[in-house]
Amino acid sequence: MSLLYEGKAKRIFSTEQPGVLRVEYKDEVTAGNGAKKDYIEGKGRLNNQITSRIFNFIKARGIESHFIEQTSETEQLVKSVDIIPLEVVVRNIAAGSITKRLGFEKGHEFESPLVEFFYKNDNLNDPLITEDHIQLLHLASEEDIELLKNAAKAINAVLVQLMDEMELRLVDFKIEFGRNKSGQIILADEISPDTCRIWDKYSDTNFDKDVYREDTGSIIETYQTFLNKLEEL
Amino acid sequence: MSLLYEGKAKRIFSTEQPGVLRVEYKDEVTAGNGAKKDYIEGKGRLNNQITSRIFNFIKARGIESHFIEQTSETEQLVKSVDIIPLEVVVRNIAAGSITKRLGFEKGHEFESPLVEFFYKNDNLNDPLITEDHIQLLHLASEEDIELLKNAAKAINAVLVQLMDEMELRLVDFKIEFGRNKSGQIILADEISPDTCRIWDKYSDTNFDKDVYREDTGSIIETYQTFLNKLEEL
Ligand SMILES: Nc1ncnc2c1ncn2[C@@H]1O[C@H](COP(=O)(O)OP(=O)(O)O)[C@@H](O)[C@H]1O
Ligand SMILES: Nc1ncnc2c1ncn2[C@@H]1O[C@H](COP(=O)(O)OP(=O)(O)O)[C@@H](O)[C@H]1O
Ligand SMILES: [Mg+2]
Ligand SMILES: [Mg+2]
Repeated sequence: MSLLYEGKAKRIFSTEQPGVLRVEYKDEVTAGNGAKKDYIEGKGRLNNQITSRIFNFIKARGIESHFIEQTSETEQLVKSVDIIPLEVVVRNIAAGSITKRLGFEKGHEFESPLVEFFYKNDNLNDPLITEDHIQLLHLASEEDIELLKNAAKAINAVLVQLMDEMELRLVDFKIEFGRNKSGQIILADEISPDTCRIWDKYSDTNFDKDVYREDTGSIIETYQTFLNKLEEL
Repeated sequence: MSLLYEGKAKRIFSTEQPGVLRVEYKDEVTAGNGAKKDYIEGKGRLNNQITSRIFNFIKARGIESHFIEQTSETEQLVKSVDIIPLEVVVRNIAAGSITKRLGFEKGHEFESPLVEFFYKNDNLNDPLITEDHIQLLHLASEEDIELLKNAAKAINAVLVQLMDEMELRLVDFKIEFGRNKSGQIILADEISPDTCRIWDKYSDTNFDKDVYREDTGSIIETYQTFLNKLEEL
């Protein structure tokens, strides 16, 4: 089966089944849009298992995604979609770029979850875009944007509850959506410590890629601890 | 009468009349949020006259502003408002930051005028913000944002027509709004070649601060030519 796309964290292959793709999670980690990059053995296995569990968890709570099933330690089958080139970010607590961009203090709790859109375009460095930009670039209609925002908030509500049960705080996360053959918009890509910021409820420990971005711990130990907590649920 | 505020282009003084301010246009020009800066004799006079004419022109077409009257070559009286710290930008044609940020080619004509909001905050370098950010920062309510966008588009329509009569193209411009004592939102600040991008209809000549930003001509000659065109109307 042929390789359709190789990204920074995953390889996407076609399968014999039309409309079904095989995703292989890579043992690679990047930060700053690829500026920092490392090979880390075992990372693909962890993210594949974590994403699979999370997609199953949210499905049980009524949220559909591209996820079909995990087929090996590092692989899963998903429904093929046309990815909408938007990184949809939901923030519950200020951290990362928004502290620099708008001056919010790290740790500031937003009154209500904030949804932001970034244009998924490596050449432009994934810039923040407004809803008017999205329409102008013909990435999504006004109705689609409304749907994306509502879907993102619903996913956030389910994930916040999941993390809460694990005694964790969901700070922020990035998701991607795509359109299937019939034009329906569904959640795609991954939900893992690579794409979320997750803090311990009672300490300064974090369970996400910031340990790599900020060189404060081991990716494998951190993601393994997170997976263990997920399995204990 | 006391100096209330000195900005990059103007000084604001109180007057004996409550609710009325005196604005003095300075012989100074800056670009890149003050990174480039020069003293240019005669610039204040030109911008004061141009802004006064433009505020009078749009008033005659039903658009209210803070402008009361021009009182000297470099001064005008305006109504005092609480400035909303937003730079409201309207774009008809792609130029400047949007070509770098979103990859639009310089000269690309937008299908419909695009309104953008920037957070007027020198420490943060006036970042682009979304409507959700504006509400989160309590700068304006959802209804106020709608009003600002509609007002910006109405002002654009009047200015596009004005420039068209002068055989010019209005590429983009930045305006500021404020709230008066009764909470009403009105157009404030200035409308001048410092705050607009204006291109000749038939040639590559431009009549705006880009001659200073890009070192392609004399500010005084450029703004004087623009004022002459405005006076010929
Ligand atoms: N169901 C899907 N159908 C098609 N493409 C997908 C699907 N889910 C995710 N993708 C895309 O697969 C690519 C590979 O993922 P990744 O390695 O994270 O790439 P990137 O470096 O672009 O972030 C991404 O561009 C992502 O948008
Ligand atoms: N009617 C008004 N009432 C109060 N402040 C105003 C009014 N019109 C403009 N201003 C403010 O006056 C300040 C002086 O203008 P300027 O020199 O352009 O300053 P800046 O360097 O902040 O752009 C600006 O902060 C502007 O927002
Ligand atoms: Mg990715
Ligand atoms: Mg100014």
